[in-house]
Amino acid sequence: MTIGEFDLIKTFFTDIGPVSGIALGVGDDCALLDIPAAHQLATSVDTLVAGVHFPADGETHAANPALIAQKALRCNLSDLAAVGAQPLAFTLALTLPQVDEGWLAEFARGLRACAEEFSIALIGGDTTRGAQRVITVQVLGAVPPAQALLRSGARPGDIIYVSGTLGDARAALDVIYRPSAQLSDEQHDWLRRYYLPSPRLTLGIALRGVASAAIDISDGLAADLGHILDHSGVGATINPSLLPLSPAMLTHPQALNFALHGGDDYELCFTAPPRLRTAVENIATQLQLPITAIGEIIAEKTLLQHTGEGGMTVLTRAGYQHF
Amino acid sequence: MTIGEFDLIKTFFTDIGPVSGIALGVGDDCALLDIPAAHQLATSVDTLVAGVHFPADGETHAANPALIAQKALRCNLSDLAAVGAQPLAFTLALTLPQVDEGWLAEFARGLRACAEEFSIALIGGDTTRGAQRVITVQVLGAVPPAQALLRSGARPGDIIYVSGTLGDARAALDVIYRPSAQLSDEQHDWLRRYYLPSPRLTLGIALRGVASAAIDISDGLAADLGHILDHSGVGATINPSLLPLSPAMLTHPQALNFALHGGDDYELCFTAPPRLRTAVENIATQLQLPITAIGEIIAEKTLLQHTGEGGMTVLTRAGYQHF
Repeated sequence: MTIGEFDLIKTFFTDIGPVSGIALGVGDDCALLDIPAAHQLATSVDTLVAGVHFPADGETHAANPALIAQKALRCNLSDLAAVGAQPLAFTLALTLPQVDEGWLAEFARGLRACAEEFSIALIGGDTTRGAQRVITVQVLGAVPPAQALLRSGARPGDIIYVSGTLGDARAALDVIYRPSAQLSDEQHDWLRRYYLPSPRLTLGIALRGVASAAIDISDGLAADLGHILDHSGVGATINPSLLPLSPAMLTHPQALNFALHGGDDYELCFTAPPRLRTAVENIATQLQLPITAIGEIIAEKTLLQHTGEGGMTVLTRAGYQHF
Repeated sequence: MTIGEFDLIKTFFTDIGPVSGIALGVGDDCALLDIPAAHQLATSVDTLVAGVHFPADGETHAANPALIAQKALRCNLSDLAAVGAQPLAFTLALTLPQVDEGWLAEFARGLRACAEEFSIALIGGDTTRGAQRVITVQVLGAVPPAQALLRSGARPGDIIYVSGTLGDARAALDVIYRPSAQLSDEQHDWLRRYYLPSPRLTLGIALRGVASAAIDISDGLAADLGHILDHSGVGATINPSLLPLSPAMLTHPQALNFALHGGDDYELCFTAPPRLRTAVENIATQLQLPITAIGEIIAEKTLLQHTGEGGMTVLTRAGYQHF
């Protein structure tokens, strides 16, 4: 296979996503992008490595390349959601061991479907040769100045909320790495949550001026809430019995552990002062998205959980560590 | 070694480059960046893979990590130069086989030196584990609307120019891959050109409104001029005897071949109508940078070179192919 870089980009990666706002897309030295007037640029970059972040080819649980593409872009969009930014465009840096046209066609199909769903265009990238597949996606978004949701704004007394349900994506990992011939409906749901997380973009935008701090849950609730606490210089108490679980997780023996420490859910965890409780509830109603109060910010810099017996214990923050 | 991702970023990659214009840097879900009013965003991404784009550890010609960092950032800045954009910030996605603190410290040292030289801040990134080092840098810059230099604007009659000298970086490859104990002054110069190319940022900005098309020479003059021709729907004649060579290359037996087809020089190749010849010459004088007219754009879609005998032959465009 001797397809060159230029042919590869032309064949698989042109015209992905809508072109509005894109002054110049793939094919020149730079892409050019119109930023809405009086907005800041918000940007985030994430890398997925074959065999680390998704199963490599040859492993029995190898994923469809379209799903890998979907997950790569959705995880990045979730970072825009976490700061309340609207998506504008994205870039793709792809390192490949060889040009596998079947893999590339499927990958591009997933990327295109995701780009169209979230109205975000691929504006540039790079393709290189390497020992394993490495997929780096960078998203570009816009947010009005001083309205971005940061990790650093939580204050004692603020209520802690999470969107959607927690733990499903972690349950999927057991399905992926211990595959069986027949998958149950619940297992299908978990896999969908793992590969096709829903970046909470409309929620993030709605929370501008409402949330005092926000983060997306990629490494697990305890770890990511921990980042809010560190950045804000505060602590928290949470009530594990309040953690929102999907119907499929209600009977899972590890449900609570997965909801606290499982990663990859890409729900938002955010804080807001009690006086804005109604505003938060109205957002949940408008977006038809469950938003659950799970605890409270405290001044003391510890993360505590309610025990069933009315007491408190320290909650470990351990989440996924890349090294 | 159990240093986690957060410690790794904190230890090596915080406070790299100036902070002006950076609303929020490394450490939140997104970085936030102020774009100058009435400017478009220009962005480019490039990946360097160990063993492909730079020698891997263990190879006798392994490069200093500080030089790898310099080259990664400078190549990207060159893409901003090629469109006439001013640099604003950059991101770094780093895939590593293990946490080698010595390598990381040197890499960060080179990155910091380059970021300070070009007044560009590291605003975000990702670190992941993988089989080999993969370095993806994305630069963000700004350019006034409709003033970006594109590949597509060359017109028949335009003069073709190149900045600086050509072929030195290609000569360095022979030094890198056939190392000897003692390096001559010329060889040191070539290595410096290869690892520390000069992104022609001030030239790119000065060429706004002057150049009809531009590109940076990364794959070789013939290949990159070929992109201008393709995008503009034109052809060119060039005179190889006019190609600018450094003193060190004047006696190199492959000088002409390297100047035509060697990559990695990161000079600008641009076109401008003959009526702007004086404007181009004034820019060269102001910037104290050699700018050499090497040929002319023609309507016929071929790339021709003058022969010594007053004739013309077709010039192959072959440059470096990544696959």
